[in-house]
Amino acid sequence: MKMKNLLVASCLWLSFTAVAVAQKVASPNGEVQMQFELLEDGTPAYSLFYKGQPVIETSKLGLILKNDEHNLINSFEVIEREESDFEETWEPVWGEESEILNKYNELAVVLNQKPTDRQMIIRFRVFNDGLGFRYEFPQQQNLGHFIIEEERTQFAMTGDHTAFWIPGDYDTQEYDYIESRLSEIRGKMEGSITDNLSQTSFSDTGVQTSLLMKTDEGLYINLHEAALVDYSAMHLELDDENMVFESWLTPDVTGNKVYMIAPGKTPWRTIIVSDDARDILASRMTYNLNEPVAIDDTSWIKPMKYVGVWWEMITGKSSWHYTNDFAAVKLGETDFENATPNDTHGATTENVKRYIDFAAKHGFDGVLVEGWNIGWEDWFGNSKDYVFDFMTPYPDFDLKEIRDYAKSKGVEMVMHHETSSSVRNYERHMDSAYQFMKDHGYNAVKSGYVGDILPRGENHYSQWLVNHYQYAIEKAADYEIMVNAHEAVRPTGVARTWPNLIANESARGTEYQAFGGSKPNHVTVLPFTRLIGGPMDYTPGIFEMDISKANPENDSWVNSTLANQLALYVTMYSPLQMAADFPENYERFPDAFQFIKDVGMDWEESVYLEAEPGDYITIARKEKGTEKWFVGNVNGETPRTSKISFDFLEPGQKYIATIYSDAKDAHYKKNPQAYNIRKVVVTSKSDLKQWSASGGGYAISIVPAEKKETKGLKKL
Amino acid sequence: MKMKNLLVASCLWLSFTAVAVAQKVASPNGEVQMQFELLEDGTPAYSLFYKGQPVIETSKLGLILKNDEHNLINSFEVIEREESDFEETWEPVWGEESEILNKYNELAVVLNQKPTDRQMIIRFRVFNDGLGFRYEFPQQQNLGHFIIEEERTQFAMTGDHTAFWIPGDYDTQEYDYIESRLSEIRGKMEGSITDNLSQTSFSDTGVQTSLLMKTDEGLYINLHEAALVDYSAMHLELDDENMVFESWLTPDVTGNKVYMIAPGKTPWRTIIVSDDARDILASRMTYNLNEPVAIDDTSWIKPMKYVGVWWEMITGKSSWHYTNDFAAVKLGETDFENATPNDTHGATTENVKRYIDFAAKHGFDGVLVEGWNIGWEDWFGNSKDYVFDFMTPYPDFDLKEIRDYAKSKGVEMVMHHETSSSVRNYERHMDSAYQFMKDHGYNAVKSGYVGDILPRGENHYSQWLVNHYQYAIEKAADYEIMVNAHEAVRPTGVARTWPNLIANESARGTEYQAFGGSKPNHVTVLPFTRLIGGPMDYTPGIFEMDISKANPENDSWVNSTLANQLALYVTMYSPLQMAADFPENYERFPDAFQFIKDVGMDWEESVYLEAEPGDYITIARKEKGTEKWFVGNVNGETPRTSKISFDFLEPGQKYIATIYSDAKDAHYKKNPQAYNIRKVVVTSKSDLKQWSASGGGYAISIVPAEKKETKGLKKL
Repeated sequence: MKMKNLLVASCLWLSFTAVAVAQKVASPNGEVQMQFELLEDGTPAYSLFYKGQPVIETSKLGLILKNDEHNLINSFEVIEREESDFEETWEPVWGEESEILNKYNELAVVLNQKPTDRQMIIRFRVFNDGLGFRYEFPQQQNLGHFIIEEERTQFAMTGDHTAFWIPGDYDTQEYDYIESRLSEIRGKMEGSITDNLSQTSFSDTGVQTSLLMKTDEGLYINLHEAALVDYSAMHLELDDENMVFESWLTPDVTGNKVYMIAPGKTPWRTIIVSDDARDILASRMTYNLNEPVAIDDTSWIKPMKYVGVWWEMITGKSSWHYTNDFAAVKLGETDFENATPNDTHGATTENVKRYIDFAAKHGFDGVLVEGWNIGWEDWFGNSKDYVFDFMTPYPDFDLKEIRDYAKSKGVEMVMHHETSSSVRNYERHMDSAYQFMKDHGYNAVKSGYVGDILPRGENHYSQWLVNHYQYAIEKAADYEIMVNAHEAVRPTGVARTWPNLIANESARGTEYQAFGGSKPNHVTVLPFTRLIGGPMDYTPGIFEMDISKANPENDSWVNSTLANQLALYVTMYSPLQMAADFPENYERFPDAFQFIKDVGMDWEESVYLEAEPGDYITIARKEKGTEKWFVGNVNGETPRTSKISFDFLEPGQKYIATIYSDAKDAHYKKNPQAYNIRKVVVTSKSDLKQWSASGGGYAISIVPAEKKETKGLKKL
Repeated sequence: MKMKNLLVASCLWLSFTAVAVAQKVASPNGEVQMQFELLEDGTPAYSLFYKGQPVIETSKLGLILKNDEHNLINSFEVIEREESDFEETWEPVWGEESEILNKYNELAVVLNQKPTDRQMIIRFRVFNDGLGFRYEFPQQQNLGHFIIEEERTQFAMTGDHTAFWIPGDYDTQEYDYIESRLSEIRGKMEGSITDNLSQTSFSDTGVQTSLLMKTDEGLYINLHEAALVDYSAMHLELDDENMVFESWLTPDVTGNKVYMIAPGKTPWRTIIVSDDARDILASRMTYNLNEPVAIDDTSWIKPMKYVGVWWEMITGKSSWHYTNDFAAVKLGETDFENATPNDTHGATTENVKRYIDFAAKHGFDGVLVEGWNIGWEDWFGNSKDYVFDFMTPYPDFDLKEIRDYAKSKGVEMVMHHETSSSVRNYERHMDSAYQFMKDHGYNAVKSGYVGDILPRGENHYSQWLVNHYQYAIEKAADYEIMVNAHEAVRPTGVARTWPNLIANESARGTEYQAFGGSKPNHVTVLPFTRLIGGPMDYTPGIFEMDISKANPENDSWVNSTLANQLALYVTMYSPLQMAADFPENYERFPDAFQFIKDVGMDWEESVYLEAEPGDYITIARKEKGTEKWFVGNVNGETPRTSKISFDFLEPGQKYIATIYSDAKDAHYKKNPQAYNIRKVVVTSKSDLKQWSASGGGYAISIVPAEKKETKGLKKL
């Protein structure tokens, strides 16, 4: 009977409408300030300030509804304001630190639209690191089901900022970032749209979130969303005359954006802001705006370091599919047992065992295998409904033998569910596929959504699909399965609630280094953008940058030095980390490989030492449950000397630091495998000046040491 | 390796191309003759003859493919002809007779499209009752995945026949039949399209199958399809200058008709033909063209006679929903426990028990209850995704108490799954909903697909949905559940393969008698059209024709006499039969109600005594496992005297026939409840002349009798 209570309460609240319409709410430390107001025609609006400087100028709020003359745009009156404050500390199941502070001041503005007698609440939460707000629709008689034709949430910029953006797209996020002024987006749009197996762009000034900007005054601003659940993903459409962004939701096949029910709520729209770029990386606002964990027993959710039969197929050295006999495959009818093997199939029992041996030898937790199950002969580009059954292996993949072999070696197999975006088919098989995993000892699944969506005409980021990804996560939780979803919608902190969503790809990952390459500074942008919403299965660790060595027909180049690849294990936070290269490439560089073996996966504490988007990021992290620290630095195109202090270390304690750095002549393109490794003694008083090459970086492992262990080692 | 075999075989077959292109195949009795030919440009074509008369004039065959310049239309050569004959007798799990003869002569024409080197087979089966043919696409290198933009199968009529048609529509079949010349279809189309909660018409000359026609020469022709599996439903588009029908498939949301894979095949296109209308009713060709039963143990599939809490809601006497408190419902959030009951809810524990008592007292097998589960407050018209969970009862429906009460009374509860056409939601809940049924003793489900389809933009009869209905049937079979699917695609004999598809509505059922009424002769058409594909849950047995007595706000009238309602249990064959009216209405007419209690449900033999579409149907059926016979006669608008012989009875045996007929002054509108009941003695030598009123009919139960039992009874 919420509705009735609201109506009763409304009467009481009416007495408050006489108060001044504009209202300010400051963050707990006072540095971030939000102002809410109703414009003359009853349009709600807000603005945002950081240390007194405007961040967001007066920006309108509202929603266009389908077949509704009044919409939810204007003619509102404030019937109640509820102010409150909140503070909690919560412990993530995995993360960049063991405890997260969630502290904010809140303002909930209860609005009544006079001509329709409909209520809408806009709830603002002001944190020290920014603002989150959302629309809420309480249960009421005059608003039940409604269709959102467009959300009209504005973010009015104060100037022609520098932005790190990718093109708005309903189906892919796998673009290289463009760094440009806002006014330059229109001119650069066409050139920024590179080919993808499924893509739908919608505007010359439409960009994706999370979007990072830098103002000429040195403010860093990140726009994104939090808790995207049963709603469509938000893009930002720029009015580049006025520098005003407006929300642009992903439509469904009929052009509608969201099907809404009151009671209901939108995701949070988020603005993270600071004058120090490191604060953007340290922000936990996106997680804090999500609901607390919904899984009672999370003991089965564990960070994993893994290798896999994957880079072989990505480079074109081997194939996912087993045979070239068939122009089309019909599962259950096509006879694979008697088909001619193509001799390029990667997921053979023999090859998988080689990876298992390698994983066991070097202490990896898991082995991923792609292309193990029938159906890869015609798996994409055919709008195929029943494309995979997620259970039937190819004749040359002996599932039970592999399962038993892995078990005997203490290695866990990682399942792969490519859906080919045929999501009805995946949902139909989901229970049996998850049960199959549990029956065979798989506890984690990498899922994929390559190609155009089925149901046909739907988009990867529409409400229908957002709902599907969530369904997959929640059902996996029922089976105690961890999910690493590729090509799914980019994360929005939902892993706080569902920590079995252990990673997403949902951005341009390492695979693009074998598809023509990514920009050398790509990894200096991702932590400011894509990683704001959750961890990325970036699959780093490529040691051989010349892809033609794997496949003479592929002239791609990995635009990174080897030392940069090591640093990614620290800078690209994820509880799931792959060592993506071939075993034979790691065996060529065992000393460097040692860092990948050593690096932690789950963190007690993270210290953001240096950061400038597009240029460099340096992070130190303390491994959970140990006294070990790991440092990573990734560098952009311009060579640079990083200067860091070790004051994060325990005072008085000596540590041995192993520094994996670019050699003097290293260069991502010309000499990527030139690295140095040195061991030194460090304490909390040590400083480091370390040069990083173009597209380079460094990684450090820091281990507490007894005095005798440091003997013969230089002090830093 | 089918493909390779085909290629090898092709070489051998090439030697046959010199034979004459036209080829005739006759039915086993020689009366039906099909001729296949290749036209000059290599277009395949066929024609059909009955007793030497043309039925189908030369008609082209082929398919338009998407983005394919050659299509599969012409440039074919015949590379092989395979002729064969077939005969089997099979025993249906339920049906109009205990044994069905499947006997035909077959011609498979293997075609090669020269410019593309692609193979297509057209397979013709010529039965004594007509022709079935389909397209087949063997596995091959040059044809894998393809999209059918339109199927171009022609049915060229020999003249301007009289047709019994309903408007072509992608979303509903619930129209009253129009009887008109083919040339009149265009002029009558607009007026024939009555309102429906979901409907999409496409053409002024587009009609649905199964379509019945009568030629001026007295031939009856039925056009339909058989074995509609993973394909879209076929309509017929009329070229009314040339009287040529062409197949018009139901599109998906993007406009595509079918996504096809080679190896693959289309449904059968069927032409049933005879100069005796009774042969159309007796035809089993549609079943014969389906695959044999796919369920190993069918012992759990049983015909059922049931009553239910249903007509109350249809008439508007009571409601499906429980409360008027909410403008919208969110399952899992909306608090029904504390909501205000609306006092019109039909599915209360008390009311259901009343039906259980009634069912037990009168020997019914089951009780259906609609509106028992939460969600009916906003169940249609809202494009609502999570509309029902199929498991949570309203607070006033005590599922366990009802379950135990029904069990104690020896009555089975029939489950109801209204999906509101939100088929993703239904599929997500299907396993748990079916398991819930088994846990609570439900063995049959009535499912419904009211309103527009979700995934949005899809159509009720597109491939996506046809695939869904089939999925639901097969999954139900896994749980040993019988399915009675309403608003699903009209059946095409699939129940031969999946006899747990015990009925469909999928046409204008009795409910329309409470939605303004159906034509009095509707039931004299349905057996010639809708029932060709399988049984209909027509829900007959309405004794009170004046709907305003149930609901003063509803002035609908049931256009039928009471005797006609009784006859429907014989003439509208279904292994699932409802006695749809209220218990109190049956209690007013206990003598007439006796027929509904007595009438058989499953048949050893059926004899089609009289038939003329739109005018009358008279059928005698022998109950399986007994010596009882039941006769039904339904009459159209014109009063008529039916003349039948009882020569189907066992010679020498005396029977007592109880004849339920229209009284002299009966009339569907003016005096529908005027009936007579008389008992007479009949033998195989008896004849009956029985008058039926306008919209009337008669029913007879015939029970073998000892001499003493016939004492005092007149001979017929």
